[in-house]
Amino acid sequence: MKINHLHYRSIWLQSDALVQIFDQCRFPHEIELMDLRSMEDCARAIRDMHVRGAPLIGATAAWGMYFAVREAPEGVEFEAHIRQAAEYLNATRPTAVDLFRALRLMQEQLANAGGKENKIVQARQTAQFIADESAEQCRMIGEHGLPLIEAISAAKAGNPVNILTHCNAGWLACVDYGTATAPIYAAFDKGIPVHVWVDETRPLNQGARLTAFELQQHGVPHTVITDNAGGHLMQHGLVDLVITGTDRTTRCGDVANKIGTYLKALAAKDNAVPFYVALPSSTIDWSMRDGVAEIPIEERSATEVQYIQGWKNGKIEQVLLTPPGSPAANYGFDVTPARLITGLVTERGICEASEAGLTALFPEI
Amino acid sequence: MKINHLHYRSIWLQSDALVQIFDQCRFPHEIELMDLRSMEDCARAIRDMHVRGAPLIGATAAWGMYFAVREAPEGVEFEAHIRQAAEYLNATRPTAVDLFRALRLMQEQLANAGGKENKIVQARQTAQFIADESAEQCRMIGEHGLPLIEAISAAKAGNPVNILTHCNAGWLACVDYGTATAPIYAAFDKGIPVHVWVDETRPLNQGARLTAFELQQHGVPHTVITDNAGGHLMQHGLVDLVITGTDRTTRCGDVANKIGTYLKALAAKDNAVPFYVALPSSTIDWSMRDGVAEIPIEERSATEVQYIQGWKNGKIEQVLLTPPGSPAANYGFDVTPARLITGLVTERGICEASEAGLTALFPEI
Repeated sequence: MKINHLHYRSIWLQSDALVQIFDQCRFPHEIELMDLRSMEDCARAIRDMHVRGAPLIGATAAWGMYFAVREAPEGVEFEAHIRQAAEYLNATRPTAVDLFRALRLMQEQLANAGGKENKIVQARQTAQFIADESAEQCRMIGEHGLPLIEAISAAKAGNPVNILTHCNAGWLACVDYGTATAPIYAAFDKGIPVHVWVDETRPLNQGARLTAFELQQHGVPHTVITDNAGGHLMQHGLVDLVITGTDRTTRCGDVANKIGTYLKALAAKDNAVPFYVALPSSTIDWSMRDGVAEIPIEERSATEVQYIQGWKNGKIEQVLLTPPGSPAANYGFDVTPARLITGLVTERGICEASEAGLTALFPEI
Repeated sequence: MKINHLHYRSIWLQSDALVQIFDQCRFPHEIELMDLRSMEDCARAIRDMHVRGAPLIGATAAWGMYFAVREAPEGVEFEAHIRQAAEYLNATRPTAVDLFRALRLMQEQLANAGGKENKIVQARQTAQFIADESAEQCRMIGEHGLPLIEAISAAKAGNPVNILTHCNAGWLACVDYGTATAPIYAAFDKGIPVHVWVDETRPLNQGARLTAFELQQHGVPHTVITDNAGGHLMQHGLVDLVITGTDRTTRCGDVANKIGTYLKALAAKDNAVPFYVALPSSTIDWSMRDGVAEIPIEERSATEVQYIQGWKNGKIEQVLLTPPGSPAANYGFDVTPARLITGLVTERGICEASEAGLTALFPEI
């Protein structure tokens, strides 16, 4: 996708020793590249949320493994070093399953290559494959989701289709295109009038900072709202469709996504607004059934709630919101049960949020 | 209630020519009194939200009418001046019905007094009556709501009762005690262990700024959360009870309250968590039935969403959150339908959120 009319992905291998990302902590006020030159750089980028979004976390972890292979000492320590790196990267964040999948895939492929040089080549190819596959899956999600928007547009006789999204499941969360945004970009590019309600998504405001920025750069009409506003909009017929992403999808179609998604799903159900979740199959955790009971939910620092970051006098500033001494809690995700989801938009098509729906699309599981 | 161990109300007549309030825009970082010396001062305090909360808006408007009488020119212009003042104050904010009720009561009482001096005395007495009545109603709401918390506490065998509230329906929203907080303070003062989840309540963060401050000053254990978090907490059994306030309650028990309340009511219903709304009867609009269709919802400036105010280097700062040029929308309230409300806690007791429930408690209507 584009920033200032130039095409970018959210992560790329710049040279053999350098992976580059955008520092997403500084968006939209500062657009800065960040260099990743080691496994540790990749781990820190994930942990401190310089990158975020399930598919992008997976791709970053894959490049982290590539660096780990380069850094591994030859000899008897080699395999142990790689295994420890995988465990270390595995522990950077707990909810997004793409992370674990990417690390597993890297380890499987590395096991097939002999010798350090071969393993470096294998690691580079596999990491690049994971990134390319993610971009292609998102492009396909856009193709499969497009008819949903086209159908609403046809029924609205040229009036804009109002789509609500939560957090950032855009190209900045993926490698390209985005998950929830892919059908939106596909519709916009086809000339279908769309308008996006962007939940700001406290505490880290990925909606207000990243989704709004993405949409603005692409020229898509949008309006930022507080996380509180979506229910009111749906009560008054101002939302035609909700599309979100997911960080982990169970075999039965429950989804863990950014905290607050569940509240929007409830409001959508209460107002008969279709609620779709867009996901590459890399976010499906086939080992889990009951999302609320089983998916581990990350608890992050209270300071992310107590403080907020914004732009003032030409620089990024953090301001305190709460009374000094008032404690805060910071749960990163919530689980939306399958019963509230109209459908899942995957790279293979749309299915019901259920075991039957998912296994029909992915029979090889 | 108390600030730094001193007892205050949220508004009071300091001398014949001076009403004082706390400037609630600056809480919790600066605790400053603000002088109201004219009808215009009172109107501005309401419009710019130096005071907010349905009962306090009503009391402030009443004192505004007191100043209007003092300011009115004697002679043929006198009645017109007062009528215009009432219309002017009436237009300061559209949703809270206490405002209109206070102005109506002031005008009715003024009609009974002859001569400017008598009318000034009448206006002072009536404004004071409105404030005193509001405080007393809130105290009674506390008494009637207390058994709800006692019953949960008894079932939890001494573990804290976890109560979630949205926005600030505390004493800073009223004249004293608060509406939603009155039962919480009553329980806490009686030694019942309670813990309050405080929704921060974007865009103006009345929860994080005012409710957290109030609870902290009173020593009540509490935790600030984002507006997105409540659904997750309810899914995991971490909320025993939700209590909110209301800015307007219809005859059939629908309530308009701070934007986002509806989302919490949906989550409470989905998780079988009791959801109560606490209100003095001054917030009931007996002329309306269907809240979603009939209650006017205030739209405020987009800048309240695009910017946020916090504390940095010893002063209050505003920082920009969104990309420059991204539009924002700012709806102030949403409507929670009666079907989602477990009960209404009023100064006369608890009733079902329905016309039958309300008219049984208020048969004189």
